[in-house]
Amino acid sequence: MKLLRHGAPGAEKPGLMHSDGTIRDLSGLIDDLAGAALSPESLARLAAVDAGGLPEVAGNPRLGPPVAGTGKFICIGLNYADHAAESGMEVPPEPVIFMKATSAICGPNDPIILPRGSEKTDWEVELAVIIGKAAKYVSEAEALDHVAGYAITNDVSERAFQAERAGQWTKGKSCDNFGQIGPWLVTRDEVSDPQNLAMWLTVNGETMQDGSSKTMVYGVAHLVHYLSQFMTLHPGDVISTGTPPGVGLGMKPPRYLKAGDVVELGIAGLGQQRQDVIAD
Amino acid sequence: MKLLRHGAPGAEKPGLMHSDGTIRDLSGLIDDLAGAALSPESLARLAAVDAGGLPEVAGNPRLGPPVAGTGKFICIGLNYADHAAESGMEVPPEPVIFMKATSAICGPNDPIILPRGSEKTDWEVELAVIIGKAAKYVSEAEALDHVAGYAITNDVSERAFQAERAGQWTKGKSCDNFGQIGPWLVTRDEVSDPQNLAMWLTVNGETMQDGSSKTMVYGVAHLVHYLSQFMTLHPGDVISTGTPPGVGLGMKPPRYLKAGDVVELGIAGLGQQRQDVIAD
Repeated sequence: MKLLRHGAPGAEKPGLMHSDGTIRDLSGLIDDLAGAALSPESLARLAAVDAGGLPEVAGNPRLGPPVAGTGKFICIGLNYADHAAESGMEVPPEPVIFMKATSAICGPNDPIILPRGSEKTDWEVELAVIIGKAAKYVSEAEALDHVAGYAITNDVSERAFQAERAGQWTKGKSCDNFGQIGPWLVTRDEVSDPQNLAMWLTVNGETMQDGSSKTMVYGVAHLVHYLSQFMTLHPGDVISTGTPPGVGLGMKPPRYLKAGDVVELGIAGLGQQRQDVIAD
Repeated sequence: MKLLRHGAPGAEKPGLMHSDGTIRDLSGLIDDLAGAALSPESLARLAAVDAGGLPEVAGNPRLGPPVAGTGKFICIGLNYADHAAESGMEVPPEPVIFMKATSAICGPNDPIILPRGSEKTDWEVELAVIIGKAAKYVSEAEALDHVAGYAITNDVSERAFQAERAGQWTKGKSCDNFGQIGPWLVTRDEVSDPQNLAMWLTVNGETMQDGSSKTMVYGVAHLVHYLSQFMTLHPGDVISTGTPPGVGLGMKPPRYLKAGDVVELGIAGLGQQRQDVIAD
């Protein structure tokens, strides 16, 4: 299933993308795509419903992030060997983790907002993993049982805030609208191999990132296992698994976003996003 | 007011500590101490209520964290000059920020759980600031208007996970039960000067930390202003403002927690916490 949330920011309703290309509303079946609604049992119940019989959502509504109630927005740093190289960093001996503020989360086509004083706002297409069932001390073999599905994330990053403003990356990763997620939460059964997905990103139509999750250093199952050794992962938590090469920071000279730019990005089977870049 | 949440984990109800030493229930007035219930208008309404007329909560209930719906648990690193020195670090030229997972949040007297494989779990008494009104690009002069109140936090930290397991501090800061908050949210009107509060922490009755928020490098008003330049602070967000000297890492040799230890900590006017240390 391609699950989604449609409507105005903060007032989204749950829905799904039907095979006929229409959005169908799920409000009669679940309150929201959050918490227990993301469990394997809940997803099985939704999968058993005749989508064609659900109310059709008229028009072309805004899409919100396809998951609500996210407690943790965990990111993996330097998780593609060639991206680490372009950043002038070594591939780490174990996953590097950091947090984005959950207040940075927005819909897939919501604008990228340049924070005041920003001169180095950059893009990162990433494969996001959405947790469906609490995970603590899980083995790598059982890790994917805790995954509800996958989505695209743009891990928007302000490089000066991240690296030139005293310690720790959070500051450059957490600005409002720095975390587009969606368009859909594609359930796990529809993603046969999360380690073999083409990923791309363009700025004003020019290809910047053109990679694949097959060059990910630490794969999805390992990451869920690994993170669960440090903290309980809860339903609705999002893990953004790192970006392939082609970010603005890695270019010579570096290239950053400016108001008026248009960013588009996609991952095979997970849809695509489009964002206008605007000043705050 | 000394606002609190009483009851079993995940099922807490709002309440307050009455001047006669009893807990009074606020369930009839607010759903929870979260979101709009933390606004200046809501707190003014609660302050106008005759607390003696509210239902008394019988017995000695468990206390939960005194705030719910926390979207961000932001911490300030190295924010006491002498703590930076004991950690072998410089005082940073501007605040260092990092995130703890919100899933680490627990009640003030809930146990400190040593994660599997932990050998370096440490303590940090901190003054926590709880946001009551959204803050974005606020000046230092208006910053405190966005603060609902204050609480004690124990920013429990696993030093090996934090510093010896590849990049970024989050990993050693986010384990389950690594963020005791409470016992109360003491509203701002009862804390005349957040920069002059005695703070202490003992392990098995032995004093480890004995400091004051007056040696904080970046004060509360500056921190709220500063953070709001990078991201919107929302009601229920918690900012833990750093720890004074006396952590286990800074001792020669370093000293860490083991199962069976008892940690007690307090801040003048904000009450105190008591935690048993247990293995996971």
